[in-house]
Amino acid sequence: MLITMKEGEEVIKRGAMAVEGSAITYVGAVPSEEILSTYDEVVECEGRALMPGLINTHGHAAMSLLRGYADDLPLQTWLEEKMWPLEAKFTGRQVYAGTALSVIEMIKSGTTCFVDMYDHMDQVGQVVLESGMRARLCRGSIGLVSEAEQLEKLREAVQFARDWNRQADGRITTMLAPHAPYTCPPDYIRKFVDKAAELNLPLHTHLSETVREVEQNVADYGLRPVEHLRQLGFFDLPSLVAHAVHLTDEEIDVLADYDVKVAHNPGSNLKLGSGIAPVPKMLEKGMRPGLGTDGAASNNNLDMLEEVHLAAMIHKGINEDPVAVPALTALKMGTLYGAECVFLEQEIGSLEVGKKADFIIIDLSGPHMQPLHDVVSHMVYSASRNDILDVYIDGKPVMRNRELLTIDEEKVIFEANQAFQEIK
Amino acid sequence: MLITMKEGEEVIKRGAMAVEGSAITYVGAVPSEEILSTYDEVVECEGRALMPGLINTHGHAAMSLLRGYADDLPLQTWLEEKMWPLEAKFTGRQVYAGTALSVIEMIKSGTTCFVDMYDHMDQVGQVVLESGMRARLCRGSIGLVSEAEQLEKLREAVQFARDWNRQADGRITTMLAPHAPYTCPPDYIRKFVDKAAELNLPLHTHLSETVREVEQNVADYGLRPVEHLRQLGFFDLPSLVAHAVHLTDEEIDVLADYDVKVAHNPGSNLKLGSGIAPVPKMLEKGMRPGLGTDGAASNNNLDMLEEVHLAAMIHKGINEDPVAVPALTALKMGTLYGAECVFLEQEIGSLEVGKKADFIIIDLSGPHMQPLHDVVSHMVYSASRNDILDVYIDGKPVMRNRELLTIDEEKVIFEANQAFQEIK
Ligand SMILES: [Zn+2]
Ligand SMILES: [Zn+2]
Repeated sequence: MLITMKEGEEVIKRGAMAVEGSAITYVGAVPSEEILSTYDEVVECEGRALMPGLINTHGHAAMSLLRGYADDLPLQTWLEEKMWPLEAKFTGRQVYAGTALSVIEMIKSGTTCFVDMYDHMDQVGQVVLESGMRARLCRGSIGLVSEAEQLEKLREAVQFARDWNRQADGRITTMLAPHAPYTCPPDYIRKFVDKAAELNLPLHTHLSETVREVEQNVADYGLRPVEHLRQLGFFDLPSLVAHAVHLTDEEIDVLADYDVKVAHNPGSNLKLGSGIAPVPKMLEKGMRPGLGTDGAASNNNLDMLEEVHLAAMIHKGINEDPVAVPALTALKMGTLYGAECVFLEQEIGSLEVGKKADFIIIDLSGPHMQPLHDVVSHMVYSASRNDILDVYIDGKPVMRNRELLTIDEEKVIFEANQAFQEIK
Repeated sequence: MLITMKEGEEVIKRGAMAVEGSAITYVGAVPSEEILSTYDEVVECEGRALMPGLINTHGHAAMSLLRGYADDLPLQTWLEEKMWPLEAKFTGRQVYAGTALSVIEMIKSGTTCFVDMYDHMDQVGQVVLESGMRARLCRGSIGLVSEAEQLEKLREAVQFARDWNRQADGRITTMLAPHAPYTCPPDYIRKFVDKAAELNLPLHTHLSETVREVEQNVADYGLRPVEHLRQLGFFDLPSLVAHAVHLTDEEIDVLADYDVKVAHNPGSNLKLGSGIAPVPKMLEKGMRPGLGTDGAASNNNLDMLEEVHLAAMIHKGINEDPVAVPALTALKMGTLYGAECVFLEQEIGSLEVGKKADFIIIDLSGPHMQPLHDVVSHMVYSASRNDILDVYIDGKPVMRNRELLTIDEEKVIFEANQAFQEIK
């Protein structure tokens, strides 16, 4: 069974897909034995489903080292007393180890492309290179520092974005990312906008995650964050904003008008008590938000199926509307819309000829998948990460039968624990 | 590692538990080799955690046959056009097959005791008997029928409750259950209350799941449902109500005063767009709600870890309060508080000497469980059903290394699909 995510032809009950090199070369009815015999390998998928890999549109992979280190605290206490003091001790070693841990977890839960905004990004690039993953990477810069430090961070961000874009057979692409309007002065944000225009790269930032930062923006600049970023020219370029929880209807209109991409992070927004993004309104306005996990310290996992599930569930609940964010829409948010959010919709996000072969194979035989009335419903409401058997990225298997093929799982887990011990 | 759920001693980092027959006979420090050698079997749990089995406090197991059959519809359309016409075709055969499918799914996700309110309850009892499960069962009676039919349903409910209570080595207990105030006339509810008093059994019903039924209750009887049930004497007996979504503060006070048990069903309430129960307020008033999945047709799975996860997440999100329903509270809702909700807190819900040996063994080695900063946090925010390796009920293993020992999984899945085919 194929869940293609191609508009209007989302599910093919009996079908086949062909891959040559890194690309999908056929999607359609099962071909004849004669044609099948011309392929090097035929993978029988009876009782299984194929679908595009999940796309995690916002995160900080290295933070998995701090998973569960502190929970259930007020946001500022959590950040200022728990996260930041430990993160300040992160060197390239912690970033490499934490990112590798996250990449394992992501592959094992069916993610084939992720956004990462962090520091020591060369290490992140290295993990992506070695693991066979696909990623859209950016050095996140907090601007609450001296001008010299600001400029050094900008220089680093630009150099990383320039050096690593389209590396790893094109699997790595980059962005520029001032961390957030509340952590970057306006003129600093403007510098990122200028550099992004110069390098022809998208922008990424955090937007209106909490009420407090929105109020701060109004107090500091007399503007809510959306208008603030608009005036800084942020939305004149391809841009992806994470969270977008606290928006007025007018702000949603602005984001829709400028075709700003939104990474909806339901798990993180719930857990940190940030609130719930107005996704049904975004969808009404024609926006196509993607989904993200945010860092594992605020989630506390990187399971994109869980985000799909939450996206399909929570908006129904809070709006008391059982038709809000239907299952198919939620699954598209995790795949096709995600591809649009990372500006790779020409390459990934659906099973279509010409796109990259980034796909996952799902076991449909578990008791929770019976009876198989509706495979899309089951993927969204019933499935769990362990139903994902195989993961292919860029045409290459990275997991088969839940065994990782490109990374030594035990070694990565050992080193992640060691890397945390070194800083605790 | 032991997650005992015993108040004040919830986690024992290095410990051991002994089981003799169906009972827990020791919980504490690891004993000497000499003492260990006196046991028939010693199970080494390095890198694993032991915790009480999860308790599903509300559901309709046979409805798993309709999982994903219809989703994302307005509640009345879903019920009246999709669920009820098919359910009307259910015979004992469908109930047996659907319940067996659910029991497999429940065991594989760590549930060791479940509440079931349905029809053809002898079939449900049979599945529980054969599978080694523990359950609190009741025949749910909808009273919108002739008086003769009402009385026949009551007679059936009473006979089932009488015949099956404390059967299957005591693993089966029963209740009496008028379906809901909006489906049972007051005098019919009163008959159940009288019978429950006579048989010394608890009562179970649906309460204030949707705004609409609350408004209907006010229109029909001039009372909101809580006061309505109170006046019918429902709360004078041990009683468990499912949902309790739409409550005034005064109604919460009444439920707390009468020590009414609440089954919180976050997944079902979200998916059907019913709303979100005021759990933080219940907790403030000293109530200890349990968790339930409701039927698989409105969830769409029976994964109690998911309900624990939702309980810990959604109340933080909608209240914009990151300290609402902390991880440990959510996990207690799924175990200890659940035991209280099914009136079996003397027997199950925590790992304590003298209680029944209903427990699960969890693999802590997955990437999503690293680093192991806080095992309770990881169980609530990071774990998934597949991390559960072994399940013991009444001292007997029913799953080991994810292989079911008391049920033929393949056969049950085959028969469940067949049973649906017969009625579609
Ligand atoms: Zn973030
Ligand atoms: Zn129910």
